[in-house]
Amino acid sequence: MPTTQPLSEPTLRLDEARARRNIARMVDKARAAGIRLRPHFKTHQSHTVGRWFREAGVRAITVSSLAMAEYFAADGWHDITIAFPFHPGMRERANALAGRLRLGITIADVDALAEVTFDAPVALWLKIDVGSHRAGFEAEDVPAMAALLDSLRGRSDLLPGGLLAHAGHSYGLRSATAIGAASRDAMTQLQQIRAQLVGHCDRALQISIGDTPGCATQTTFDGADELRPGNFVFFDLSQWQIGSCGIEDIAVAMACPIVARYPRRGRLVVHGGAVHFSKDSMEFEGERIFGLAVAAEGDGWSTLRPDIRLVAISQEHGQVAAPAEFIEACRPGDTLLLLPVHSCLSADVIGELHTLGGQRLPMMKRWSGVADPNTG
Amino acid sequence: MPTTQPLSEPTLRLDEARARRNIARMVDKARAAGIRLRPHFKTHQSHTVGRWFREAGVRAITVSSLAMAEYFAADGWHDITIAFPFHPGMRERANALAGRLRLGITIADVDALAEVTFDAPVALWLKIDVGSHRAGFEAEDVPAMAALLDSLRGRSDLLPGGLLAHAGHSYGLRSATAIGAASRDAMTQLQQIRAQLVGHCDRALQISIGDTPGCATQTTFDGADELRPGNFVFFDLSQWQIGSCGIEDIAVAMACPIVARYPRRGRLVVHGGAVHFSKDSMEFEGERIFGLAVAAEGDGWSTLRPDIRLVAISQEHGQVAAPAEFIEACRPGDTLLLLPVHSCLSADVIGELHTLGGQRLPMMKRWSGVADPNTG
Repeated sequence: MPTTQPLSEPTLRLDEARARRNIARMVDKARAAGIRLRPHFKTHQSHTVGRWFREAGVRAITVSSLAMAEYFAADGWHDITIAFPFHPGMRERANALAGRLRLGITIADVDALAEVTFDAPVALWLKIDVGSHRAGFEAEDVPAMAALLDSLRGRSDLLPGGLLAHAGHSYGLRSATAIGAASRDAMTQLQQIRAQLVGHCDRALQISIGDTPGCATQTTFDGADELRPGNFVFFDLSQWQIGSCGIEDIAVAMACPIVARYPRRGRLVVHGGAVHFSKDSMEFEGERIFGLAVAAEGDGWSTLRPDIRLVAISQEHGQVAAPAEFIEACRPGDTLLLLPVHSCLSADVIGELHTLGGQRLPMMKRWSGVADPNTG
Repeated sequence: MPTTQPLSEPTLRLDEARARRNIARMVDKARAAGIRLRPHFKTHQSHTVGRWFREAGVRAITVSSLAMAEYFAADGWHDITIAFPFHPGMRERANALAGRLRLGITIADVDALAEVTFDAPVALWLKIDVGSHRAGFEAEDVPAMAALLDSLRGRSDLLPGGLLAHAGHSYGLRSATAIGAASRDAMTQLQQIRAQLVGHCDRALQISIGDTPGCATQTTFDGADELRPGNFVFFDLSQWQIGSCGIEDIAVAMACPIVARYPRRGRLVVHGGAVHFSKDSMEFEGERIFGLAVAAEGDGWSTLRPDIRLVAISQEHGQVAAPAEFIEACRPGDTLLLLPVHSCLSADVIGELHTLGGQRLPMMKRWSGVADPNTG
């Protein structure tokens, strides 16, 4: 399985065909359901991958920070929602964005807009906690939300957009049935809250939902006006374990040089650590893992090797547990391909993507402030 | 405690005075012990911080990747050891470095040098596993090491430098006494292995050791020729828990905007997640934490607030457990200062440092390929 091309350092390989297929499926699903797709771009953080979405007809996107909004604005995106709670320190940069594109912001605290005004219209989304208990308003906060909406009447800079939720607790589920039930429960909560806010706002409040497990496993989204999944463009082992995708849908794999073999303890050491994979892990067959190997095939990869596991990582080192005969066949300098547990964080920490065709796609962190020269 | 300067995004603040004091102490200690200090630069990954070391008299450094060696070579470092296992895929870039500076490489597998030659002399270090069982040769590998050294006789491109160890298992210890015992045990192993290699090499093999707990807590390093600690320049909560430093020695704190308050469940949400802190965590008073708050003071910070804890993180969000009266006093947009669990990874993922004086220090990942314009 080790490939023979010598690599000098770990490289996050992106199978463009798989990513484009994942994009096309979600676009088709949203279109069939008659719902606006506003994909979250925090997973890829790349101008080029963003252009693949644009080619599939996507015009509205979600980001998780001001920096990410600025990065995609620079590549021609004109309709961006920042789905991270707004606070007054964000006002100046958000105001500059609002002057050049259709901006949406999200709030999760009634005092988040204290004395904030904008020079151009900004859509305001109320973040609702539908069960993950990370951030957002709950049902008992309806009076506070109503008062907030009342206070915005007559203002032309902050236009209520609707209720925005991320059912993050779906990441703990393991079947399409359970995920579907959680999605329907979330929708019931959102609709009940919206009903109580009627009369406090002149506009009809929309409902925006966003978790990849829900969007990937379900086909109907009754009640929703907008879908904001992100991870589905690449998927990863976590999503595979949840049931959101098949192994063949995972579009990124870390190519790691093998640097040492320890057959006595059944271990390989690869160049591939926390600065490449992140430290996100998952439980797999009773063991904590940071990645699983796949067999190299052509320029890409094919089947899973669940017996070859990234079981420990430090800053640069990865320790791989593997069968003796596999270790025997390896040499330092060979490349091992490992699927990441969490593609969003792996892409973020390594900071660039390489297509199977050899194209290097810089990402936001390495961005110099000018548009990406890669074609899209 | 929340500071009033509005921040638009999380910022890793660096107290230059503390970092320079940490550097000076280690330089003085190595000088007093008559040992070469070759600090590991993977913690700061910054040209400017590197210059603070140079101003303290340091001339030799350690790095953990080719990219890091190239980055520091560009800022005038002429003596660099790559303390990560070499493999044949690294040959071309390593050879280019060897042509312009004094390069050391490390191997952890007898086949790592298969058919590799260099056009200029390269120092070769044998990585010894003294107990962490991550990477390196063990005592029973002495015959293989001896054969390797024999095979290098007469070659002018690969010059045996010595034995290199990182007692990574010291990170699990919790007292200077236990760390001292582990350090002495490691030294005994190294000296025994070296004694068995006499006669297989024309040069005297040196001994290089490197963990921050050992270097920070001990004052004598009998038998060692070189010290390679890295983390001590910033320290962090992990090192404080081990006993390597006091809270007042920790030189970096993440300044996080508070974005929402949830007094009913005793939580604040801050902008500060896995892409700022990394996902490294530690056990503190029976709880898994990702950071602890400190009180703001002037442009910097002072005492620990162990009752204000970063207890959960996702990509951008941090959830902070705090006392009710503290939450009551906070407003969205206030800044909370949090000490990181692991400063090396936090610095790596956020990718830049900001001094208390307001200077922005770019790091390797955002490097454009030219020398850092900041003075040093």
